[in-house]
Amino acid sequence: MSDDFISRLTGLVGERGIVTSPAEMAPYLEDWRGREHGRARAIVLPRTTEEVAEVVRLCAETGTAVFPQGGNTSLCVAATPGADADGIVLGLKRMNAIRSLDRASSAIVVDGGVVLSAIHEAAATVGRQFPLHLGSEGTAQIGGLISTNAGGTGVLRYGPTRDLVMGLEVVLAGGRVWNGLSTLRKDNTGYDLKNLFIGAEGTLGIITGAALKLAPALRARADAWLSVAGPEEAVTLLGALQDVFDTNLQAFELLSRSEIQSVLDFVPGRHCPFGEAPAWSVMIELGAPDPEAALTARLEETLAEAMEAGTVLDGFIAQNETQSADIWQVRHSVSESNKKRGVGLTHDVSVPVSQVARFIAEADAMVAEHYPSAEPVVVAHMGDGNVHYIVMFDHDWWQDVMDRKALQNNVMRRVHDIAMALGGSYSAEHGIGRKLTAELERLTSPVELDLFHRVKAMLDPDGLMNPGAVLSP
Amino acid sequence: MSDDFISRLTGLVGERGIVTSPAEMAPYLEDWRGREHGRARAIVLPRTTEEVAEVVRLCAETGTAVFPQGGNTSLCVAATPGADADGIVLGLKRMNAIRSLDRASSAIVVDGGVVLSAIHEAAATVGRQFPLHLGSEGTAQIGGLISTNAGGTGVLRYGPTRDLVMGLEVVLAGGRVWNGLSTLRKDNTGYDLKNLFIGAEGTLGIITGAALKLAPALRARADAWLSVAGPEEAVTLLGALQDVFDTNLQAFELLSRSEIQSVLDFVPGRHCPFGEAPAWSVMIELGAPDPEAALTARLEETLAEAMEAGTVLDGFIAQNETQSADIWQVRHSVSESNKKRGVGLTHDVSVPVSQVARFIAEADAMVAEHYPSAEPVVVAHMGDGNVHYIVMFDHDWWQDVMDRKALQNNVMRRVHDIAMALGGSYSAEHGIGRKLTAELERLTSPVELDLFHRVKAMLDPDGLMNPGAVLSP
Repeated sequence: MSDDFISRLTGLVGERGIVTSPAEMAPYLEDWRGREHGRARAIVLPRTTEEVAEVVRLCAETGTAVFPQGGNTSLCVAATPGADADGIVLGLKRMNAIRSLDRASSAIVVDGGVVLSAIHEAAATVGRQFPLHLGSEGTAQIGGLISTNAGGTGVLRYGPTRDLVMGLEVVLAGGRVWNGLSTLRKDNTGYDLKNLFIGAEGTLGIITGAALKLAPALRARADAWLSVAGPEEAVTLLGALQDVFDTNLQAFELLSRSEIQSVLDFVPGRHCPFGEAPAWSVMIELGAPDPEAALTARLEETLAEAMEAGTVLDGFIAQNETQSADIWQVRHSVSESNKKRGVGLTHDVSVPVSQVARFIAEADAMVAEHYPSAEPVVVAHMGDGNVHYIVMFDHDWWQDVMDRKALQNNVMRRVHDIAMALGGSYSAEHGIGRKLTAELERLTSPVELDLFHRVKAMLDPDGLMNPGAVLSP
Repeated sequence: MSDDFISRLTGLVGERGIVTSPAEMAPYLEDWRGREHGRARAIVLPRTTEEVAEVVRLCAETGTAVFPQGGNTSLCVAATPGADADGIVLGLKRMNAIRSLDRASSAIVVDGGVVLSAIHEAAATVGRQFPLHLGSEGTAQIGGLISTNAGGTGVLRYGPTRDLVMGLEVVLAGGRVWNGLSTLRKDNTGYDLKNLFIGAEGTLGIITGAALKLAPALRARADAWLSVAGPEEAVTLLGALQDVFDTNLQAFELLSRSEIQSVLDFVPGRHCPFGEAPAWSVMIELGAPDPEAALTARLEETLAEAMEAGTVLDGFIAQNETQSADIWQVRHSVSESNKKRGVGLTHDVSVPVSQVARFIAEADAMVAEHYPSAEPVVVAHMGDGNVHYIVMFDHDWWQDVMDRKALQNNVMRRVHDIAMALGGSYSAEHGIGRKLTAELERLTSPVELDLFHRVKAMLDPDGLMNPGAVLSP
């Protein structure tokens, strides 16, 4: 029966479209952080939407679970099956065509398996940009990015991935194909199906194609590193900058002294333009398509006013590309430095922007009370209200912890509870995957949870699409 | 039984919350264009979300249909019951509180019955704007605007209403309340329920509260009326302006000579800055929050280049507020002039921006072939690919038409078919209502139509929420 199933799969996708040897399957079954190892009967790699549909139909017929996989860069184990899974991984990587590129409509239509950086390159050929940027852009695939509604560094200006999608092509559970590949800016004809699949982490269907919005390419920029007294002043500064720069404000990141110090201590070649790491740092990026936009000059005026008002204590505005790169190198060294610094329990919460300062204060107080040996580290996409709140333990201290899983869970719940009490979210940009299903059950209202289950039952009544992700089985 | 039902309703909402006399009910039962007249047992006007929920529960218990109504400004009969309906109209107008206003988070939370202009005023008190603008803004309510995903003049810059909603509170069929009133910029915790209700025209539940995004107020602007050779040149111009002005480009409207001539002929006090009405007119608005933004100067430079390239034939840039107002008065006189000019069969289609010129050419050819006595009139939100294509008949000619309904349907289908063949939509911003349900059935793919029915069955299994709108009963 199993052999027959494999040979039928092979009949659909060809010998080169199927992987069954344990050694070759291993990389598809290990999650991005290398901590979880799943199980599958085969890795199936179709080349066309029709092949995906045929594979899904065969799985429906045989009651086989399907685990869709893009670039396998999920930070919450959404892209690999569980350790007790019994199904197939359906990888999109051989579906990597740019289907069409329409400059006048600022639209690109791509296969679900296209790697993000390939979309950047295609857009650039017509003087446009695709403004989704994140660390794994050389590996992450657009189908997975849409399925997880990925965030990244462009959200303040362009919104999350959801806001960049005009249309989708989806292979539904059961194997029918929904063609919603519209490149329209406006369409009010019936219920919005597209947004159901965006962020559903492959549990409602498989995204095999996408129509995406492009934006004008940026040809002017300015970058600065500012010292502010605290998160409350950072919120004031954000409002003042938006009142002048509107959508030219592309990034507004807030970092605690502990985070900057960690980078300076543990990553060689990183510099701080101030005498010592400021209590709180704000890093900003301005960008505009108009090459004539005098962003740096206008920023100098605006910051002079902010310093006079006491909102900004000190500031460093990059005068050339090297200085810009130096600022952002510090920001991008955060993960590396934190790994060396100790064991950091990271949280991906969001709160309304006005509540960021209060969230940090309450979380710091919680850490001081319950985990006095830990140091709070903050790196926040503050313009989005998205705080990566890290509770940092020394390596030595961590070694002595008896039940690490329990400690981790307790810290996580306490941080999440503080965010939720402020009208926040316990997963701002990473999603649920297999990592946060228990938190979803704990923190979702009964009405909402019931609606989630109804959505799942409506689109995947047999529960064969990425089972175990988002909702507990 | 009916008397008992009315007295139970009265018990829930009080004497002042119910209208049953035919004379007082009449305005609630006539559609915005005054063409359709519906029927209802009562108009019910709750004051709180809990009252709405109680009314919906009573209706569920008694199998009574509920027709939700905001400001009753629908252009496609979404807000009034059908002539053979047997249910209640549930009006939101007594739910008109601003619940909270958070400048730092750029967020406002309001009752579903708040009139749009009241939201504009509230936002202005904290130096922000709510960028949804349309003709009926003094009457339309936010719950209805969200339920119909209203368009308007700000879509090019800010997106449709969908893009302005952060969270919703919805009374579900059956009477449970879903509280999704988040003011978060980022939240990836489960399926996207919000977008199901947006644009669902009250057929899936009743929007009783909304959390909305605010934007920085605009303090610099520039307006111009340009003459271009044709729609193709307008598309080129749009791209050139976006490459310089990005989101500062707030409106980009395309009007045919026939439309401008109609305004000049039939509305007193309207002027054209050119010798005669140009073959094709583009009206643009630029706006920026920064009062120092030199929009007019930069526009002059950009248009000089466009004239040199031959994209723009002639141009008039407003030099003061009066001149700006003069330009937009012509644009806003379109409906009035067209009514006087003749009988205009209006269509609300969209196509990818790159296909606008082709759509207009093919539609004009169709009119010339099949309706030689008619004149095509074009007024388009061209930046969104949204064309209001009007087939204009003289009043006298129209009087002689035997079967006007049949003629109207034939014209409509021909126009819609042309848009659909170009990857377009037959309802860009007005929605379906009761007017376009047959077109929805005709033009939606079987897979998509099945998904629509599943969505309806999932959230309103008894079919009591605004029956007859969106989907045929």
